[in-house]
Amino acid sequence: MIVAVVGSGTESPEMLDMAERVGRDLARRGVKLVCGGGGGVMEAACRGAKSAAGLTIGILSSGDRSSANPWVDIPVPTGFSQGRNVLVVKTGDAVIAIGGRYGTLSEIGHALKAGIPVIGLNTWQLSRDDQPVPAITVAADAADAVDKAVEAARAAGAV
Amino acid sequence: MIVAVVGSGTESPEMLDMAERVGRDLARRGVKLVCGGGGGVMEAACRGAKSAAGLTIGILSSGDRSSANPWVDIPVPTGFSQGRNVLVVKTGDAVIAIGGRYGTLSEIGHALKAGIPVIGLNTWQLSRDDQPVPAITVAADAADAVDKAVEAARAAGAV
Amino acid sequence: MIVAVVGSGTESPEMLDMAERVGRDLARRGVKLVCGGGGGVMEAACRGAKSAAGLTIGILSSGDRSSANPWVDIPVPTGFSQGRNVLVVKTGDAVIAIGGRYGTLSEIGHALKAGIPVIGLNTWQLSRDDQPVPAITVAADAADAVDKAVEAARAAGAV
Amino acid sequence: MIVAVVGSGTESPEMLDMAERVGRDLARRGVKLVCGGGGGVMEAACRGAKSAAGLTIGILSSGDRSSANPWVDIPVPTGFSQGRNVLVVKTGDAVIAIGGRYGTLSEIGHALKAGIPVIGLNTWQLSRDDQPVPAITVAADAADAVDKAVEAARAAGAV
Repeated sequence: MIVAVVGSGTESPEMLDMAERVGRDLARRGVKLVCGGGGGVMEAACRGAKSAAGLTIGILSSGDRSSANPWVDIPVPTGFSQGRNVLVVKTGDAVIAIGGRYGTLSEIGHALKAGIPVIGLNTWQLSRDDQPVPAITVAADAADAVDKAVEAARAAGAV
Repeated sequence: MIVAVVGSGTESPEMLDMAERVGRDLARRGVKLVCGGGGGVMEAACRGAKSAAGLTIGILSSGDRSSANPWVDIPVPTGFSQGRNVLVVKTGDAVIAIGGRYGTLSEIGHALKAGIPVIGLNTWQLSRDDQPVPAITVAADAADAVDKAVEAARAAGAV
Repeated sequence: MIVAVVGSGTESPEMLDMAERVGRDLARRGVKLVCGGGGGVMEAACRGAKSAAGLTIGILSSGDRSSANPWVDIPVPTGFSQGRNVLVVKTGDAVIAIGGRYGTLSEIGHALKAGIPVIGLNTWQLSRDDQPVPAITVAADAADAVDKAVEAARAAGAV
Repeated sequence: MIVAVVGSGTESPEMLDMAERVGRDLARRGVKLVCGGGGGVMEAACRGAKSAAGLTIGILSSGDRSSANPWVDIPVPTGFSQGRNVLVVKTGDAVIAIGGRYGTLSEIGHALKAGIPVIGLNTWQLSRDDQPVPAITVAADAADAVDKAVEAARAAGAV
């Protein structure tokens, strides 16, 4: 099982702490982590995963592998800029969105389009015609996000 | 000036009518149209543009140019599936989002990330922390959407 | 009909002159030109096309439309770096390769893989097991390259 | 260190045997393997790597992870068709090309363009102006290819 963690390259200390817990809890369950391989939420999640001996994959926007954060085991230096967002979410059996700005919004859109479950931690809320669209499963905290992501990935057939 | 029109491959007759008007009004102003080149909103917008002798570019998800709708002048058969969404919005000086599902949401995210103005017609509404995020400029109708898109594109430097 | 012209961003004056003639002759026949939108062969071909009132599409490696050469009518600022090479050749009904380095070699590979005919002007020669592989149709000069490209595109179904 | 193995989805038994040896020898040296994740050379190389407890990454042309061969540990289901070829080679510190058709030719072009060393086993031979271009380092057999790839990757800074 692989879970994608998406979020911004700059976030508050509270959000980064949450990302690190997500990474650590995924690794403790034996789940691989994929992300954009950059800083902020991506780096915190990778650091968390490595603290529990997890495996981390960073699909980089840059074509230069040295742009990966130091906790990435497998850098994929795409050079595809925003195009790599598609690759990050499609590599996951589920996606955990932590905070995030517009790049994260694009990743939520791509995941939902592909039928990949999205768990949200303090992230975007979607509406249409002034009615909430409950496409993102809201998690209460890092542990809950990991629980819900693993459950959703299993329900979608991941092992 | 090139304006991207994004929206779903299947929509209601009212939405398709709106898309056709958008395409026609863009062409009347001498603005080129780029879209995903498929059916639904994309086809209606292209048909509208061609009714006013506009130029239409279709950046296709498929690698097969025959998948373009019949109103596309310049098909770009990418074969990049959802990855082409990035290309559609980045080709526009502004984006008009008409209705839409999750693919459209990804396009809104990519456009906003790239600093490209997004005008919405009955499309996604974004919130964070239960507060609306007014990143998408809401248009009242097709004519208003074209006005706002052209104005925003000019403000961003397009000629 | 759209023909892709591929080649390097830096070439000798003789090669650039050849590229300009190719662009001009394509436009005189009413054929649209697609290329990578950069300098060198790409810029010369676009300049030639515009000298005969042709239409030019530049699929840029950069995500910034200002990186297009001044003769590009329709810039597609992909931000996909080398990934845009796929898009350039797939947009053509045929490909004319003029000189070129390794990026051009990748474009020849992508075109042949996709079944798109490749016409060569002083470009790569391919062998396997010390035997030439005649996958690239060799042209004698610019006019011959355009003749052969148009003929091959028609044989492949383009109009 | 990660080495990319590129080659066709259909090859002779001799070539597949060579690919399997390459995969096995890379794994024995602790080198990770990246490939396109499909059949033929890709599958044989992955099977070889797993026979020696290596780690395998498959960057798939399809957007469906079930298209990966059974020896892929980490599938990246891109949906980018030929566009994924760029990603395969750029993920490697060096590339070993085994036989191959036009897709492999595109991968050789992309690797050389990016400055990534290419080792060839019975693959394409390149010429310009009827003179061989020695850009591909020719290997005598699977063991030699792995030696040369590891050496070239180290010389390029990989550890």
